[in-house]
Amino acid sequence: MTKGAIVTRAEDFPRWYQEVVARAELADNGPARGSMVIRPWGYGIWELMQAELDRRIKEAGAENAYFPLLIPESFLHLEAEHVEGFSPELAVVTHGGGKELEEPLVVRPTSETMINTLFAKWIQSHRDLPMLINQWANVVRWELRPRLFLRTSEFLWQEGHTAHATEAEARAYALRILGDVYQSTMVGVASLPVLVGHKTPRERFAGAVQTWTCEGMMGDGKALQMGTSHELGQNFSKAFGITFTNNEGTTEHVWQTSWGVSTRLVGALVMGHGDDFGLRLPPALAPAQVVVLMIKEEEAVRAAGEALVAELRAAGHRVRLDDRTETSFGRRSVDWELKGVPVRVEVGPRDLADGNVTVVTRHRREKKNVPLAGVVPEVASIMATVGPELLAEATAAREARLVAVATLQEAVEAGTVGFARIPMMALGQDGEDRLAAHALTIRCLQRPDGSLAEPDDLEADLVAVVGRSY
Amino acid sequence: MTKGAIVTRAEDFPRWYQEVVARAELADNGPARGSMVIRPWGYGIWELMQAELDRRIKEAGAENAYFPLLIPESFLHLEAEHVEGFSPELAVVTHGGGKELEEPLVVRPTSETMINTLFAKWIQSHRDLPMLINQWANVVRWELRPRLFLRTSEFLWQEGHTAHATEAEARAYALRILGDVYQSTMVGVASLPVLVGHKTPRERFAGAVQTWTCEGMMGDGKALQMGTSHELGQNFSKAFGITFTNNEGTTEHVWQTSWGVSTRLVGALVMGHGDDFGLRLPPALAPAQVVVLMIKEEEAVRAAGEALVAELRAAGHRVRLDDRTETSFGRRSVDWELKGVPVRVEVGPRDLADGNVTVVTRHRREKKNVPLAGVVPEVASIMATVGPELLAEATAAREARLVAVATLQEAVEAGTVGFARIPMMALGQDGEDRLAAHALTIRCLQRPDGSLAEPDDLEADLVAVVGRSY
Repeated sequence: MTKGAIVTRAEDFPRWYQEVVARAELADNGPARGSMVIRPWGYGIWELMQAELDRRIKEAGAENAYFPLLIPESFLHLEAEHVEGFSPELAVVTHGGGKELEEPLVVRPTSETMINTLFAKWIQSHRDLPMLINQWANVVRWELRPRLFLRTSEFLWQEGHTAHATEAEARAYALRILGDVYQSTMVGVASLPVLVGHKTPRERFAGAVQTWTCEGMMGDGKALQMGTSHELGQNFSKAFGITFTNNEGTTEHVWQTSWGVSTRLVGALVMGHGDDFGLRLPPALAPAQVVVLMIKEEEAVRAAGEALVAELRAAGHRVRLDDRTETSFGRRSVDWELKGVPVRVEVGPRDLADGNVTVVTRHRREKKNVPLAGVVPEVASIMATVGPELLAEATAAREARLVAVATLQEAVEAGTVGFARIPMMALGQDGEDRLAAHALTIRCLQRPDGSLAEPDDLEADLVAVVGRSY
Repeated sequence: MTKGAIVTRAEDFPRWYQEVVARAELADNGPARGSMVIRPWGYGIWELMQAELDRRIKEAGAENAYFPLLIPESFLHLEAEHVEGFSPELAVVTHGGGKELEEPLVVRPTSETMINTLFAKWIQSHRDLPMLINQWANVVRWELRPRLFLRTSEFLWQEGHTAHATEAEARAYALRILGDVYQSTMVGVASLPVLVGHKTPRERFAGAVQTWTCEGMMGDGKALQMGTSHELGQNFSKAFGITFTNNEGTTEHVWQTSWGVSTRLVGALVMGHGDDFGLRLPPALAPAQVVVLMIKEEEAVRAAGEALVAELRAAGHRVRLDDRTETSFGRRSVDWELKGVPVRVEVGPRDLADGNVTVVTRHRREKKNVPLAGVVPEVASIMATVGPELLAEATAAREARLVAVATLQEAVEAGTVGFARIPMMALGQDGEDRLAAHALTIRCLQRPDGSLAEPDDLEADLVAVVGRSY
């Protein structure tokens, strides 16, 4: 089955995305509306992301736990804004074990209501604080316009939930997760630059007092919200009665945070680094970092190929041997390029006669003839450059489309093809409504120098980042 | 809050189990009937099990993927035995996004029907085989008599699903998973001895042609089915139309397997190794392998405690410092014993004046005065013995309760307090019915020498392992 080239990004970005996801075998549509099957290549990327995030979450002191999928419907009604935000997206179990249930159960859209029910039981004294919990889980939010990885009725994520003795400590923890876990993984591991800031009240998480966000710019200039960390204040602790006895024996409500990133990050990787030939993976997130391709099934080719696989593995890389020589070399080569494997080593009888193989660097699409003995150092040197070069390229692309403007009209123009930065003062009272009429939103608020706002900053002194979004 | 000692196993085994699970903070009941919250200590054990299983699953060539939680109800009806087996346990979503659904969705009780729908799409040619897929996921099976970890309405597990070109290859793969993944992890990592064999038709997985099982004996003599690996024959491939073109260009149905182990293994660990003081963990599955307890908050105590933590970490152990000196030392000591941490190092001012600390070996409850410089080698030497000693103890306990018998009456007597091994010939045609009247089941069938049956063995030549079960 021969397949043609994929559509270019310039021709049709959404179709390009769909084709890369399908042809790189990242994911497939599930049978029920809006559902997604994550195939081994896509799941392999997610596993590597998970490991990086999980390590950082544990370094931040949080412990993993697991809470029930099915939540009594009444729990959601305990926090008013929360239920209003999530009601339209719920999947509801009405029958269990062959009988109609007395109270319907909702499939968790997020676990604040469930986890806080347990926090109320577990937290008694200041000695129980801070309580720092993380959960890796699936969640369901009914979706009528699904897009694989970006917006699906079920997705995988981690959700952190914490309780603290003071507001300042909760705020500091929400920001620690934003920086040391999310930004650190997105930039340092996925090589995706992000703008950080907080959301306007209209864009906040349902039930939060402050939502901090990491916003990436995709290949089409649109924004993707890649991860959020919320200060919940005492909204949930008052609704769920989570109190502790402080040092002086007085009872107080805890201050809380919650924070999450999801399989959406796989979509960010595709749209942030992909080119017209498919996906380009930073080595840290590549299920295979090097593929050794045997061009033909010949004894010398196999011997050299297997020896290279062993040497490259010994050098610490994740390596696959592609010996499926009954499939054409060209087809296999295009497939690995689509999948974004950082380095391909092509082993064929002609080159081998001269003691050489061809080393291909995926992100630059550069081929080089390399003597057998030079392959390991060559691969090591390429491997060190991929992440930083992808980050530099994505950053340059974003900077080229990020414009500082002074009027709402200019913000509309710049925000329609990239990001506009505009002083809140210039945007005016009804600015957000007027942007919405152009399908634009405020992605985040920052200080004029791009740093995070402090609690006593005036909104009028902040700058809004405006763009279209996924 | 002072808590008394837990009930002994001899007094009331089920209550002992409940108390250990609660007091060791392994799990808690969720709000909806039959649901479970896995707390950090229990989840930490599960994470370590997962890592051991996952590594072995990948070594067996399977790749991880993720399939949707919600399955169209009609899918379950495609394989007749399968739907009959699972219908009474289903949770059903009838409403989504605020509307009644045209077709209800069931929350997956297992994913054969979902995954095989995708296999039918992905598998075309013999080049696509074998297809070896594993999924880590939550599943829901409505449960009216729940017990934490052992039987809950939702549990976490891995489920493997594979497709092969021949029956022999499928069979070999099912057995490879049974031995190299399941038995290897249970015995080699969890130090839990298991009997392996196959199920009688009555005890088989719904839709399988053969179910292979690992059966453990718990502290009360009852059997726990700890993991199963199924040969599915062509039952699902015919129901779902999963065909491939073989070398000669002919279309054939694939041969399949599926296999799973779950969070039930945490329950096995509690009931297989626990004593009257709580849980006893083999080091490989202990979230903390060593706890350094500061008896008092004094400068010298803290300095020595922190130095020991650093040294023990450098030696490769997972170590925690317990400096919660506002809680009594006795209480903390009992809590770590309940949690089953293999080694405690108690650092107090009196011992320290002589340059000593106390090292406590949990599974033997032995205390020893050790000079500071001797702690690291002492801990290393204890650590090497815990797993083998727990395995030897559990094996001896099982052997003491495993009796070879010749008549059904003897099987009833022995099976009621432990395991009976009885020739199928002696059990007779209606033996399984007669055992059922005594709440006994055949846990598995083996050859007389305890090995696995071969395809051409006659059932009459096999031996049945009979017992009560969880």
